[in-house]
Parts: sequence; C-alpha cells; structure tokens
Amino acid sequence: MDQKGFFQVDYSKSDFIEVKIGMLGYGFMGQVHSNAFIKVPFSFSDPVARPVLLAICGRNQKKVEDTARRFGYKEYCLDWQLLAKDPRIDIFDNCTPDDWHYLPSIVAMENGKHVICEKPLSLKLEEAFQMAQKARETKIKTMCCYNYRFLPAVRFAHQLIKQGILGKIYQFRAKYLQQQGHNPFEHIEKVWYAHGTKSGILMGIGSHIIDMAHFLIGEITAVSGLRKTYNQMRKDCSGKSNPVSADECTIAILEFKNGAIGTIESSGVSTGRKNYQGWEINGSKGSIVFDLEDLNHLQVYSTDANPPEIQGFSNVLVTDSEHPLQINYLPSGHNQGWEYGHVHALHHFLDCVVNDKPVEPLGASFQDGYRVQVVIEAINQSSARGKRVEIKEFGRDI
Amino acid sequence: MDQKGFFQVDYSKSDFIEVKIGMLGYGFMGQVHSNAFIKVPFSFSDPVARPVLLAICGRNQKKVEDTARRFGYKEYCLDWQLLAKDPRIDIFDNCTPDDWHYLPSIVAMENGKHVICEKPLSLKLEEAFQMAQKARETKIKTMCCYNYRFLPAVRFAHQLIKQGILGKIYQFRAKYLQQQGHNPFEHIEKVWYAHGTKSGILMGIGSHIIDMAHFLIGEITAVSGLRKTYNQMRKDCSGKSNPVSADECTIAILEFKNGAIGTIESSGVSTGRKNYQGWEINGSKGSIVFDLEDLNHLQVYSTDANPPEIQGFSNVLVTDSEHPLQINYLPSGHNQGWEYGHVHALHHFLDCVVNDKPVEPLGASFQDGYRVQVVIEAINQSSARGKRVEIKEFGRDI
Amino acid sequence: MDQKGFFQVDYSKSDFIEVKIGMLGYGFMGQVHSNAFIKVPFSFSDPVARPVLLAICGRNQKKVEDTARRFGYKEYCLDWQLLAKDPRIDIFDNCTPDDWHYLPSIVAMENGKHVICEKPLSLKLEEAFQMAQKARETKIKTMCCYNYRFLPAVRFAHQLIKQGILGKIYQFRAKYLQQQGHNPFEHIEKVWYAHGTKSGILMGIGSHIIDMAHFLIGEITAVSGLRKTYNQMRKDCSGKSNPVSADECTIAILEFKNGAIGTIESSGVSTGRKNYQGWEINGSKGSIVFDLEDLNHLQVYSTDANPPEIQGFSNVLVTDSEHPLQINYLPSGHNQGWEYGHVHALHHFLDCVVNDKPVEPLGASFQDGYRVQVVIEAINQSSARGKRVEIKEFGRDI
Amino acid sequence: MDQKGFFQVDYSKSDFIEVKIGMLGYGFMGQVHSNAFIKVPFSFSDPVARPVLLAICGRNQKKVEDTARRFGYKEYCLDWQLLAKDPRIDIFDNCTPDDWHYLPSIVAMENGKHVICEKPLSLKLEEAFQMAQKARETKIKTMCCYNYRFLPAVRFAHQLIKQGILGKIYQFRAKYLQQQGHNPFEHIEKVWYAHGTKSGILMGIGSHIIDMAHFLIGEITAVSGLRKTYNQMRKDCSGKSNPVSADECTIAILEFKNGAIGTIESSGVSTGRKNYQGWEINGSKGSIVFDLEDLNHLQVYSTDANPPEIQGFSNVLVTDSEHPLQINYLPSGHNQGWEYGHVHALHHFLDCVVNDKPVEPLGASFQDGYRVQVVIEAINQSSARGKRVEIKEFGRDI
Repeated sequence: MDQKGFFQVDYSKSDFIEVKIGMLGYGFMGQVHSNAFIKVPFSFSDPVARPVLLAICGRNQKKVEDTARRFGYKEYCLDWQLLAKDPRIDIFDNCTPDDWHYLPSIVAMENGKHVICEKPLSLKLEEAFQMAQKARETKIKTMCCYNYRFLPAVRFAHQLIKQGILGKIYQFRAKYLQQQGHNPFEHIEKVWYAHGTKSGILMGIGSHIIDMAHFLIGEITAVSGLRKTYNQMRKDCSGKSNPVSADECTIAILEFKNGAIGTIESSGVSTGRKNYQGWEINGSKGSIVFDLEDLNHLQVYSTDANPPEIQGFSNVLVTDSEHPLQINYLPSGHNQGWEYGHVHALHHFLDCVVNDKPVEPLGASFQDGYRVQVVIEAINQSSARGKRVEIKEFGRDI
Repeated sequence: MDQKGFFQVDYSKSDFIEVKIGMLGYGFMGQVHSNAFIKVPFSFSDPVARPVLLAICGRNQKKVEDTARRFGYKEYCLDWQLLAKDPRIDIFDNCTPDDWHYLPSIVAMENGKHVICEKPLSLKLEEAFQMAQKARETKIKTMCCYNYRFLPAVRFAHQLIKQGILGKIYQFRAKYLQQQGHNPFEHIEKVWYAHGTKSGILMGIGSHIIDMAHFLIGEITAVSGLRKTYNQMRKDCSGKSNPVSADECTIAILEFKNGAIGTIESSGVSTGRKNYQGWEINGSKGSIVFDLEDLNHLQVYSTDANPPEIQGFSNVLVTDSEHPLQINYLPSGHNQGWEYGHVHALHHFLDCVVNDKPVEPLGASFQDGYRVQVVIEAINQSSARGKRVEIKEFGRDI
Repeated sequence: MDQKGFFQVDYSKSDFIEVKIGMLGYGFMGQVHSNAFIKVPFSFSDPVARPVLLAICGRNQKKVEDTARRFGYKEYCLDWQLLAKDPRIDIFDNCTPDDWHYLPSIVAMENGKHVICEKPLSLKLEEAFQMAQKARETKIKTMCCYNYRFLPAVRFAHQLIKQGILGKIYQFRAKYLQQQGHNPFEHIEKVWYAHGTKSGILMGIGSHIIDMAHFLIGEITAVSGLRKTYNQMRKDCSGKSNPVSADECTIAILEFKNGAIGTIESSGVSTGRKNYQGWEINGSKGSIVFDLEDLNHLQVYSTDANPPEIQGFSNVLVTDSEHPLQINYLPSGHNQGWEYGHVHALHHFLDCVVNDKPVEPLGASFQDGYRVQVVIEAINQSSARGKRVEIKEFGRDI
Repeated sequence: MDQKGFFQVDYSKSDFIEVKIGMLGYGFMGQVHSNAFIKVPFSFSDPVARPVLLAICGRNQKKVEDTARRFGYKEYCLDWQLLAKDPRIDIFDNCTPDDWHYLPSIVAMENGKHVICEKPLSLKLEEAFQMAQKARETKIKTMCCYNYRFLPAVRFAHQLIKQGILGKIYQFRAKYLQQQGHNPFEHIEKVWYAHGTKSGILMGIGSHIIDMAHFLIGEITAVSGLRKTYNQMRKDCSGKSNPVSADECTIAILEFKNGAIGTIESSGVSTGRKNYQGWEINGSKGSIVFDLEDLNHLQVYSTDANPPEIQGFSNVLVTDSEHPLQINYLPSGHNQGWEYGHVHALHHFLDCVVNDKPVEPLGASFQDGYRVQVVIEAINQSSARGKRVEIKEFGRDI
C-alpha cells in the first residue's frame, strides 16, 4: 500500500491464466484484434484467460511503435520471423495483408504457436491446403478469423437451426454488398478489391458468406458461378489507365449435401451499400433473416409460434440473457457493435487454447478456412467453364 | 326528369367511348379484372374509355351467373367460343387457368378481338410462340397481363432507370417467395403449384420477375438455372401418395445484353413469406429496392442527392402528384392496394385500343409474354444440362 | 337471350336486397364513398345488400353530372333538401364540407333516412349534440364515418385487445401527422386546415385518433391539451397577409376510465409526413404498433409467444383468412389499399340497416361522433385554461 | 531490448499526456466508464490524453478488487473520501447509485478534481443546485454523463439542426420505454425503478430525453405533466406486499423558448420494449427520426433534397468519414455499439480537461444536469397540481 488506504492490485492473484499474444500487423485487423484481446478480461463472467499483449510486429517502425503504444503492447519488432519463433509467445495472430497469410502462419505453427489468421486463409489454394494440413499435423489450435460467426444474432441463428426450429432447411440466400467501386471513374487505388494483392470481391467479402453457408447450412457439394468485371479499365491517381482483373461482382448458385440450395452474391459496386451483409434462410418450419447494418436483431418466423394469427417475422433484439454471446455488464437492450464479432471470436479461441477444446464447429479452423478457398476455386472455375461443377473436384481431404 | 328536381344522367353524353368487354373466367383473375374495369371510369382524370361489362363466360352456370350479377355484367354464357366470336365484343379478356390460355386467345384474335391474356402466356413454348406470332400478324392489340409493371412504385422505378438516375445498371436481384408448400405433409391439393395444370413455381410466380427483369433491365442473353423439388412425394386428401414433378424452388443467374447480371429466385416453400416479391437494382449512380408487402414505397439511393452526408436509401412514398399512376381522387399519402396493378394495366390497354397506341414498352404484349416463356425454357434446360445456356438457342424471332 | 347462347343476367334474382343511396357531395369523400358502395356486392362472400347509386347532389351542375356519370348514378340533383326528403332514398350519405354536416343530416333523419355523415360530426359542439340526440330519438341507423376503425389491421388490433392478448391496457400513444403547412411561405389556400370552413388540425385529423382512442381503449375522463399555431400570418395567392386562427399542431395527454393514459399528437407541419397515422398500445401482456403508411401490417408483441427467446415485435401481414375484414377474391399476401377502410365501413352500415344491427361498437354512431367533439372541446379548453380538465364538464348524456 | 530484435515500448515518449482517473463505483456504470477510458487511446486519431486507471473505489473489497483486476486498475480503496481527496487524481468519476451522486462529487470538487457524475445529477433538487453552483464557483470541469448526446447519430442530428437543415423547429416527440415492470406480479426487487434509492421512471430514464430536448431543441419554458403508477402494490420475493410510490409512466407536454413544442414519454411498463429510446423532430424544412435499437442510423428528411420526387426519409448509416464521432480504425459500414456513447463522452471530457475547453454545449455540464432536475421537478408539480407550470418557478440562476 503506497498511499494510505489504497491497495495495490495483485495481478498474480488472478483466477485467469496469462496468455501471451504476438500480433503481426498493425492495420485495420491488427487494431481490431488488439482491441478485442483488451476487452476479453472484463467483458465476460468467465474470460477464461488474461491475454497479454506482448509484442506487435510490422515493417514501418514509426507506425508499429505508435500502434504498440496506443494499444499497450510491451514490445514491438520489425521482423515477423522473430515474432513467429519467439518462445515467449503462446498465440500468434496473423493480421497481415492477404498475400502474407501463408508463410508467417506456417512458420508460427512450426514453432508450436497457436495461430489465428485473418481470412481468406490464403490467396492460393495450394497454400491454403498446406496451412490446413500443417494445422492438422500439429497439436496446435488454429482459427481462420471468420468473425461474423461470432455475432450474437448469427450464433443465435445457428442455435435455432441446430435445435430444429426451422425444420428441414430448404434455402439459403446471402448477399454481401459494398460500393467502393461503383463509380467507373474512381481511381483504382481507392477501390480496395481491384488492385495490389487483393484478388477481388469474391475472395475479399464473398468468402465471409461462403463460410456462413458452411456454418449455418453445412457442406456445399456443387456450384454454378458467374464472375463479372464491369469496369475493365480504371485510371490510377496519376491518370494512367490500368486493366482490372479482379471480379467486381460474383454470384453463385449453391447445392448443399443436406438437400438445401442457395445463392451467394458478393459485389463491390452496389451503390449505397456501405457494408451490407444480409441473408435469409427458409426451412420447412420457419425462416430467419439477418442484416449486418442492424446487427443486434434477428428476424425469426416460426410456425410453432402461437396463436397462428399473430405469426409474422418476429424482430428479436438479441440482447437478453437467454441469448448467446452476451457481455457481462451490458443489460438487455444495450446493443453490441461490429467489433464484438472479433471479441467473441478471440474469447472462443482463448478458451480452446486454455482448455484444449476444439475450435470447430463454433469457430472456423484452418480446415474450415481451406474449405472456403475450395468453394472459391470451384466458383471461379464454374464461371470460366460456363457449367456447374462439383466441389470434390477441387478439394482434397484434410 | 322523373322525380321533380332530379335529372337523369345521360350516359350518351359521356366524353368517353364505350368499349365492350367479354370476360372468360370467373375465378381469382376474372374477378380482379372485372373490378379493375369497373374502377377505370372514375379513377382517372382521363379514363380514356368506359368499359362495358357485356358478358362473362364460364362452364359452371350457377357460379358464372352469380359472378355476373355481383359485378354487374349484362349477360353470361357457358361456351367460350361464343364469346370469342361475338361480334359485339371489343376486348376479349382471357382469365382462364394457365392451360386454357392458348386456344381461346387464338380464336379471339382470329375474330378480330383485342386480347388480354393472363400470365404465363402458355405452358407450352410452341403455343406461346404461335400466340405471339398471331398477335404480330393481326392488327389487334394484345397484352399478357404482367400486372406488377403497373404498380406506381414499379413504374416509378422504370422512370428513374430510363432517366439515368441509377447510371449504368450493374445488377438485378429479385425474389418471389410464397409458402404454400413449406410443410412436407401438406396435402397436394393445397399446394397450388404442385398439381393439376400448374407446372410449378418458376412458371407460376418466377415468370413475374423474369418479366420484371425484361421491363426494368432489358434483354436477357444467357442463364444458369437450378430447379429443385424438395418434397418429391406428397399425399393427397385421400391419403394416397403422389409424385410431385413441379419445381418447388427455381433459381437462376441472368446475363443481360447491356452488361448487367442478376439473379431470380422463385420459391413456394419459403415459410412465412405470403406473397413476397422483392428486388434490388444497383447501378453506377444509385440503387432502388422494392418490396411488394409495402407496395406504395420505393427505396431510392442516388449519389446525386445533396448534401452527401445525408445520402441513404430514401423511403419514397409513391403517392404524390409527381409520381406516376396516381388515382384521381386519392391525395398524397393515401395508399393504393394490390388490385391497382390491374386497374392501371387495363386502363393502359384501353388507351392502346382506343387511341391506337403500342402496348409496349409500358405493358407486356404477347411478344413480351413469349419472351418470358423462352427464358423459362432456357432456365429449365440449363438446370437439366448443368450448364449455362444462351437464350437465343430457345427463342425465335417474332 | 338476345344473342344466341347468351343469358341476360336477371338482377331481380339477386339474393341481396337493393338499398337506395342518396349521396350529398361529389368531392374527395363523395367519390371515396361512391367507390366503396360500388365495391360492396363483389368484395364479400356475404355482401348483405346491393347498394343502388340512385342520386348524387351538389351545387355545380357540370361537376355533379360528370361525377354521376363516372360512378354510374342514375340521377343527380342540385338541391340537397330534395335529396334529404326523397322518399325513394334508404341511406343518405353526407359527404359535404365540415360546416355542412349538421343541417342536411338533421333533415335526412327527420325524413326517416338512415344517415352516414363524414367526420367530424360537426364543427359546433351544440350541433353535434343535436345530431346525436336526434339519432337517438329516431329509430334510424347513423354512422359518423371514422373509416380507420375498418382497416383490417385496426380491427385486428381491436380483437386482440378484446381477447385480452395485451392484458391490462397501460398506454396509448398516437400521432397523426401531415405536412401541408410546413413551409411558412406556403399560401394559405394551399393549407387545407388553415382557411375556409376548416377549423384546424385537431378537428381535421386529430379527431380520427380521438375516435381511435375510444374504439381501442375506451372512455376518456380527463385531458391536458396544448394548441399551437406556429405561423400566425400567412399570405394568400394575391399576396395579402391573413391571420391564421386554426391550430397547426395540437397535442394532449389523455386519461381513460380504465386506468390507461395516453397521448395524441396531430400536426399539419410535420415535414415529410404525407398522411402518417401511427400508434402504439402497451398492455401488461403485450403491445401493438400500427403505421398507416404500411396499413396491411400490424406489429404484435405477446408475452404468451413461445419460446421466450424468439419474442419480438411480430410483423403480422393481416391478409390471411384468420384475419378480419378480408376481401372475397384476394388471397393471402395481397394488400388492401387505403380505400378499404370505407368499403368495410359502408358494408358494415348496410348490414346494420338491412339486418337491424347496432352500428356500435364496431362502427362509430352519431353518439360516438359527438363524444369525439366533446373531447376536442375539452382539449381546446384545457389549452386555453392551462390546466387539466375533466371530460364530463363538456359533455351531456345522450 | 530484452529479447534480440524486440524493442520495449517507451510510454514516456507518448504524444499524449497522462490523466489519472479515480473511479467511484464498480457496478454497471463503473464498468462502462472503465471500458470507455481504456478505449480512448486507440480509438481516435487524436485521443487527446492517455487515461491512467489509477484507482477504483467501492465498499465490497472482493468485488472492487476483482473489478480492478479485470479492468487493469493499479490500486483500489474502500473509502470514497480517500479517493475524492487523493492528490494524485486528476478526474474523479462518480458512478455510484443515484443517491450517492451528491456528496462525493462535492468533496471531489472541493479538492480540485475535475468531476464526472452519472445522471441524474441528484435525486434532490437542492442538492443538484448546490452541485451546479459549486461547479460554477470552482475552475474545474464537470460533466453530468448524459451519454446519448455522444452517439454519432445524435451528434449528427445536432449538427443538422445547428446548420439549419431542418429550418425552424416545430416539434420534438420523444419516448424512452422499458418493460421491467410490465407484469403486475413481478416482484418489486426485479423492477429497478420501483424500489430502493431509485425514484421512478421519469428520474431514471425520462431524464435522458429531457436532456436530449435541451441538447437538440433548447430551453424549456413550461410543462404539463402526468405521473402514473399502475401497479400501486407489489409483492417482494418474500411474498410481502409493498406500496409502490415511484411513477411507472410519466408523460409531459413541453413548451420551448424558441416556439417549439414537444412531448416526452417515459415508461417502465411498455411490454416488449427492452431499452427503446426514440424521437422525431419536425422543422419547417425537414425532419429527423432516431431509434436507439438501431443506433447507427438516422432517418433524415430534407426538402432541399433533389429532385423532389425522390424525397423521403433517408435512412442514413452514420458511419462515414463525413459523419461526426467516428472511430479511428472502423471503416464505413462498421457499426458502433451502445458503449460508444460513453467512449465519446469521456473522450470529450478529457479534451476539455487537457485543453481547457468548455464541456458545454456538446457535453452536459453540472449546470445542464441541474436544468434537467428542474424540469423533472416541474413535471412532478404539474402532475400534482393538474395544471401547466412554468419552469422558472422551480429553477434558480446558476
């Protein structure tokens, strides 16, 4: 007690084990994950672990140091290999650009780290396969961070389906729409999916709803896809014209093993849609509708509701104690923000690491991440061939 | 003046010409069309014509007489050939079941009647072709009654697109969902699309959104389709099991001549969706969203709106004098019901007949009706072959 | 049979009695009522009666004759006294401007007609009292045409409340908002509530939600009101400034005999609100929400719904056969328009006349119309005195 | 560099000054504020300060220590006087139950701390006055934490009004509805507003919308109020009946200095409403609508929007860089949660403290907190007297 009447907080007395985090990347996702780790200890009645932000890594020293200081990291470094091999690190969190997902994740796994990797697992199918295979061989935990599985309304949808509230699933109808490229005269540098290491809109956001299809409906067996690039040339800021190879809109018909069918539509040119993910599922006994712009609600129609004349889509505010993924100190009616997808995802991963639980089926493992890449490949091939293709042609067992 | 101070209304003094209607069918559509004809004279500042409900025809004398009396027909008959050939009739309105669309329409055309026929034009592609060809050969007016073109919000959408408010059209995303068949144990007689002369959900309601695609976006050049029958056996009321050949859900990817792409989804097993037609169109400068359950609104996003920080989907109540297809005596904010699609459609057709205007592009002619059938055929073939097909393979010039 | 094979429709064989209508007024309401009478015979499985549009009356011969011809009246006249006294007339329908409601209705009652009068019953409380008293003395049927009671969603709300689905009623929260006067520079002639015989927004549209309070909740015992005129001077089209005595916005707190409390807000200056009536009712076991812009839906929350975690406001599309006030030939999911409030109201009145049933409680009688006027008077007096007033101070027994 | 290639983060190099926080209370609000302070450094491009969670105080040692450890406080103590007088503390944050707001805040002010106090400022008007007066006398910064001012959509509404987008303000219509007490048989301990130190629903949640009225519209000059307790006896968990003195629903008519009028309705018995704050503002040139359940949207109607036929309520997703109160690392379309009201509020207060800026008008000072209490007193008195009262009767200059 330095100051009379004040007690020092003894962190060694914590009920929760410390888990050391090594973060690779300080951009959008590096910051979102850092925030999420910080929130874990006080957001849950059982936080499972106390994440320690040990070190963050990036190539721009000024930026990485600034990010480290803002988020409270103890250390930073400039060489990812150091981080991936550091024996102090328990969880290696790969928040790099998409074309950097492969190698650091492989090295971290080889060094016995539990590994989180942002989605998509890799831009190259073969790399994704190797990542999934490596994950299987080792005893480590892996998660491909498909964060939308961890929104309360989405998890609630998952529960309702597993409980049979919707009956036999007939149809899945998903769209993920953004608008960055809607203007043909927008400079290519302003259109995230159209340049650099990004390989288009299906890979960038369509992957989320493919994973959602896997999570909520199950295995996809065949697809018919169409890729479209409306604006095949775009000027850059210097005025030079550039060819655009990335897809701007890709849509596909899905066939599931359980007999359901579905559609996914991903677009980067949907004017007015800022970050609009929405889907509807129809089953023999009910339907559900989700809209990411209003992410604390789930619309639920159930033929079991009573009496029949007041059946309608019930606009459920998923913030009650009966609902999944609630926050310790937020009472009913107090909305969670978009960031909570990551808070719950990382909380789940910590639980898997600390208590040796499987990441699946609630989280997406590297195997799940690979399965998404296989579907992407199949959609692309279907579009090129102008015919329906079976998924098994493109994927290997893992 | 029979009664002192009272004047007899002199109908011969009317500004509007009498047009004699012969109605074939007294079911759902026969009644909807009869109501619509009755409303024309008082619903518009310029009604164009005074439809006279001359005669209605059906095979059940008791029912046809009852319907005739309720709607104010002068006469009725039991033999459609009499009606189709009656020299007093100006407009022959074919509101029969789908498998009766062909022959009476042909005979009426051959007898010089202007002909309205309910959608789909015919269940058989060859019949539809002949109907369209016959329409072209004669000088008569024909309309295949795709009524949704004539809702104020839909016409307004059409205007906005033609005016270029949406810019270059990128994508069309339509669904038409009903629920009659959602329960696998529902008797087959209760599932309209699954028995009798109906040939399924794409033909029954999917046809509406194919026509909508033609109306709003333009010519379709290729499709990839998937037909699905979830419940391949259904009991009838006697307890006997019956095979179901009709599709319960058909979805398709569309490619348009103008470079846009799209999807249509039609389902009869979407639990909770009573009669849910909805679509969204994204263009380079704006987007629009329509929902038939709330048919007086159109959501409009326009990048031209000013200032930019208040851009959002504007929920336009399409009931002002600036909007199309308004009703004479209904002021701003007074909603039209579903029936007005037909009121405006028949008003348009009367205008075409009386003033010798073309039914297209605002209404769907028999040629338009045939084009829808060609797309249906293409979707079915695409599904059977498991590949993308080009529309031109299935359609003939008309 | 004039024409071989055609049968003349024998209207004398109708199951339904003819009821002769005399319509006073050819404006907005005269046309809405005429349309409604025309629709009755074919809109219901039991239409109860066949209204005959015998005569319509107005002072402008050209306009009244044109209206008569469009709607199919047999005769027209220019002197309302002739109509009110004509022995052929069964129902006298008073669709005149508000300051004409009194005298013709009294004369018609004295001549033994059943009388419909548009709302508000009269601009003067004493006149309204006399109208209600006269109605009581005679054996005739009267209805003050509060049409919103007869929308399916509103009737359904009434049913739910009577069945106890909402439990004990706690609160009623209603608003009726329009925008005609929002612009201070709008000419006074363009602002319907601000000039001529109109006496403001509470009388004009607030009266509807006072009647709704009576219909859904019950007797009002006390009010605290506030009248507001924001724009106390308005120019007319000639440029001359005019004082505005009418209220532009009136709000009131209501206390009900059954212990519920409530608010009503009526405004003519709510920019963007075209004809926006909305209300919410909270009870101990449930709540309901209505919005006139989307009049085929009723949002229902019931704590009896099962299971609890999917409780939410259920967006009920009130178009199923289990719902009240459905139309004969419109299946589930086919929306009714605003006009159906009047169609159902007049159908109800015909039923009361033909089958000698009481207009109350489903319809508003002249006594109900008078009760609304008493509440209006009380709100105005409360505003003037700056204090809560009891309703019994202003009303007399009828 | 302990580990080769790793750099220690040097927090002394931070661009942002450390501000020491002393937190009183570890309940709902103590946790919400702690989370908010933690998020400040990394949520903003200019976080202004680095809050240091120095000490937290509460009477239950086990609970306060646990909370301290979860949120990362350095110390904790059990005696609020120690905290309020500790010379190391810069900001004293009073998150105690409502009846504890007064004394600790006074002592902290007397000891030169900048003070944040949760709302309502005090349950006793005289105490609130003294708190406001003390704040004025000293040079410290004070904030009464009306958090809803700091949601992006609310701040955006404030901007639109100040910019004149709505024109002259006519009307404010606010409701704040919860449901905890809807069931008359709910035990009194489960109804937060009905027992203990809580003095009812107007004080508890109505205060938020009174502050909102002040923030968005301006000074209130007169009110007419009605307090209601529906369930005047409630059993406690032991089965004993208890009288309920707290109001369960209070509604009031407001008159503003600028000529606007309004209503506020606060209820704890609105079945189905979890935490439903909603309001609409109508002005001569536009309107806005806010709904806390969907807190990232603001509906905006502006008559300046162009062209007129697409005017409607624009559903603005307030997550773009043009919008106020955005988060550093969240791109367009990524929703903020409820907690961000507090994050932005505390960020604002830190800015006021560090840069000596005034808390008003964007935040609510203790003077603003007092003004809310005056209006609450006036509403209660108006209800008791059954008449309109003027605010100036109850408030004193501060």
